[in-house]
Amino acid sequence: MTARADLDAVLNRIDQDLPDALARLMELLRIPSISTDPAYKAECAKAADWLVEDLRTLGFEAASRPTPGHPMVVAHGGTGGKHVLFYGHYDVQPVDPLSLWDRDPFDPEVQDTPKGKVIRARGASDDKGQLMTFIEACRAWKAVHGSLPAKLTIFLEGEEESGSPSLIPFMQENADELRAELALICDTGLFEDAVPAITTMLRGLAKSEFTLRAADRDLHSGMYGGLARNPLHVLTRILAGLHDDSGRVQVPGFYDDVAELPDSLRQQWQALAFDHRKFLGDVGLSVPAGEADRTPLEMIWSRPTAEVNGLWGGYNGAGFKTVLPSEAHAKVSFRLVSAQDPAKVLTAFRTWAEAQLPPDCEIIWHDAVEGSPASVMSIEDPAFEAARAALTEEWGRSAAFVGAGGSIPIAGYFKTYLGMDAMLIGFGRDDDQIHSPNEKYDLDCFHKGIRSWARVLARLA
Amino acid sequence: MTARADLDAVLNRIDQDLPDALARLMELLRIPSISTDPAYKAECAKAADWLVEDLRTLGFEAASRPTPGHPMVVAHGGTGGKHVLFYGHYDVQPVDPLSLWDRDPFDPEVQDTPKGKVIRARGASDDKGQLMTFIEACRAWKAVHGSLPAKLTIFLEGEEESGSPSLIPFMQENADELRAELALICDTGLFEDAVPAITTMLRGLAKSEFTLRAADRDLHSGMYGGLARNPLHVLTRILAGLHDDSGRVQVPGFYDDVAELPDSLRQQWQALAFDHRKFLGDVGLSVPAGEADRTPLEMIWSRPTAEVNGLWGGYNGAGFKTVLPSEAHAKVSFRLVSAQDPAKVLTAFRTWAEAQLPPDCEIIWHDAVEGSPASVMSIEDPAFEAARAALTEEWGRSAAFVGAGGSIPIAGYFKTYLGMDAMLIGFGRDDDQIHSPNEKYDLDCFHKGIRSWARVLARLA
Repeated sequence: MTARADLDAVLNRIDQDLPDALARLMELLRIPSISTDPAYKAECAKAADWLVEDLRTLGFEAASRPTPGHPMVVAHGGTGGKHVLFYGHYDVQPVDPLSLWDRDPFDPEVQDTPKGKVIRARGASDDKGQLMTFIEACRAWKAVHGSLPAKLTIFLEGEEESGSPSLIPFMQENADELRAELALICDTGLFEDAVPAITTMLRGLAKSEFTLRAADRDLHSGMYGGLARNPLHVLTRILAGLHDDSGRVQVPGFYDDVAELPDSLRQQWQALAFDHRKFLGDVGLSVPAGEADRTPLEMIWSRPTAEVNGLWGGYNGAGFKTVLPSEAHAKVSFRLVSAQDPAKVLTAFRTWAEAQLPPDCEIIWHDAVEGSPASVMSIEDPAFEAARAALTEEWGRSAAFVGAGGSIPIAGYFKTYLGMDAMLIGFGRDDDQIHSPNEKYDLDCFHKGIRSWARVLARLA
Repeated sequence: MTARADLDAVLNRIDQDLPDALARLMELLRIPSISTDPAYKAECAKAADWLVEDLRTLGFEAASRPTPGHPMVVAHGGTGGKHVLFYGHYDVQPVDPLSLWDRDPFDPEVQDTPKGKVIRARGASDDKGQLMTFIEACRAWKAVHGSLPAKLTIFLEGEEESGSPSLIPFMQENADELRAELALICDTGLFEDAVPAITTMLRGLAKSEFTLRAADRDLHSGMYGGLARNPLHVLTRILAGLHDDSGRVQVPGFYDDVAELPDSLRQQWQALAFDHRKFLGDVGLSVPAGEADRTPLEMIWSRPTAEVNGLWGGYNGAGFKTVLPSEAHAKVSFRLVSAQDPAKVLTAFRTWAEAQLPPDCEIIWHDAVEGSPASVMSIEDPAFEAARAALTEEWGRSAAFVGAGGSIPIAGYFKTYLGMDAMLIGFGRDDDQIHSPNEKYDLDCFHKGIRSWARVLARLA
């Protein structure tokens, strides 16, 4: 067969096998693998075992690997092509409040809705449905060709919804075994529910918390007001100066390591025609509030931020207390991009804030100078363009390399502990209600998701 | 007798009678008239009755007048001279924590201390000792001259330490009976523990509380940070602009009704040689933080302020939450002077703040547009200079008209409900520990306080 015919055969197989693929997903969804609740420990192990058994039928050498928490599923199989590691998680969120569910969250059902057929169950989208898209693609490949399409490692976590306490130690202890050329992660969604997307930039984060002190006790504003330093005033003046009128962060050196968006990405992002009015309108806003000379997508994907996340001081109870407090407090965080170094940013922030302190004031810093840098994938790796072409073919819309405003820890861990970049490809939609009652996964997303992976694997193989 | 000889005879009498005056004060101090605790209701009535009996022995027509709370003592006596009303309060603060007292708070004792003899008991300074200085002055006058020195009304409250719930209704119902030409209030102290002082200016107060809203829900800074409006930033920018770099309030029109200090007062205040380094040093500060071109005493007595008393928004718990909150909150108050109108100031503040709101933001105001104006006594009334001369004679130091940074509600009530100015003259010291364990009143203050009133009354008569 030609490569084209090879793939077509696999895609046909996927279409024919969809009812069985769905039945298998239903089986997995019936296992209430709620990782955060110790009462479901055995169910988590059961889900891991189910996956191990299923992967073995595809020729994987698979095992449920114990951890201090829930087991990891690790499977190896195939030869040739690019060695990729696929990551997903088999654990799910709790279901409370149960009364808001239309049916038993662990009794999955395909339902007709005005927007099409959906698979309704806890974990349907996050992440059992998504991880099964990859496994089903492997199954179809194996059925058609008798072997897996490439050298594959499958790595499925059972603690993603409960803080991943075992993840880093497990990766450290098994680094040689887990290391591949590239990671594939299926835990994200389509851009604006329609455009296939590969997340290649994730912002980092640096956090700072401090107390600003003036007098050694709270003062009465009748006795001292007008004469004594009010730390609330000092704090507002410092924080008000975090940005200039154009929204640019004023901490010296803040933008030193920030790269401009490459033209290729800029064009892709423009083509996305992001509807920022709807994005903001959904939360009661209308006007972009960031850097004046940046597009909305740049603001959330490729530009760093300085944000006050918490601020308090003085009296905040009912009624009034004319107090001049001795202290004022703030929590400030920075979203980082490109090569920005969290420690360097935090140190610059501290220096900048302290330089503005008037007499009699001091700042006590409560945080360590640390954080996580941005994850920026090396899209020069031909695998990225290959995957983009594959997704474009499947969805009939030009796929894009997109950013993510927040971090996705696993992507950073793969880089830090295994030295791999990751391609984040997922098929969720914004209305999947992950973490909420009545979670669903569109049957269409499940089906096209399987086909997408077949196309991606064909190109990587 | 000449007027001088008249007075000298009274002063001699006061000196000779001091042990008995002290014994009478001790009797009053033994009554635990804690107004805020219902368990002491009968004791409050007993203190009122004790005062009524004592005033009757001086020729006053006195009565304990019922209220929904504790009784008022009202007494009338004397003829001629200026008709003055004397105000004090017979109730006292609770004594908790009792374990910190060196002795029973209601078993008064004269103790020797390195700084001289003190009367140790709850209420010794606040306000039984102080109110008895006036009554003892009347007693001595009566003993020497057979009559009271002028037409006097005595008005003693029993709820001053518990919010004065009955005071305004009682004053309204008995306004004709209580109205005099001038009120005397003995519930304040010496300036810096040494200089006799008459408080003639009390700052007013206007209070504002508001919520600043942006998005209609809390947002995640990973998803929205850099694009969505953060109300904490908006709030800090508005409040940071309350003052310019010289400490001047920036609300338009704020200073319109602020009078400059008259030269006569400016000279008196300069003569006080206020030790602002000690005043600030006592609370851990060193540098005046108010208007750059004003003296420290002006800052706290005769200049208006704008102060943030409370500020909060976002996450303030342990750890971190990278939230962009939907709301930010502030409590802001203004100390007012001269003819500043609270409603006008608050309206100007609202207009000024709202003018700075960026798109998508709104302010919800939680306060009514109201407050209390400053109390500024008419020191052109010759009684004020007469009292100042009397105090100067007694204490051997030039007495001064001083200000008070906070309001003393009773002074405002006399102006509002009875149309009278008040002279606030008191003999407390900063270390009297009023409201705290081991309250005391210097025996010297008690003695000279009685003599001070005799001198003041002689001049008013």
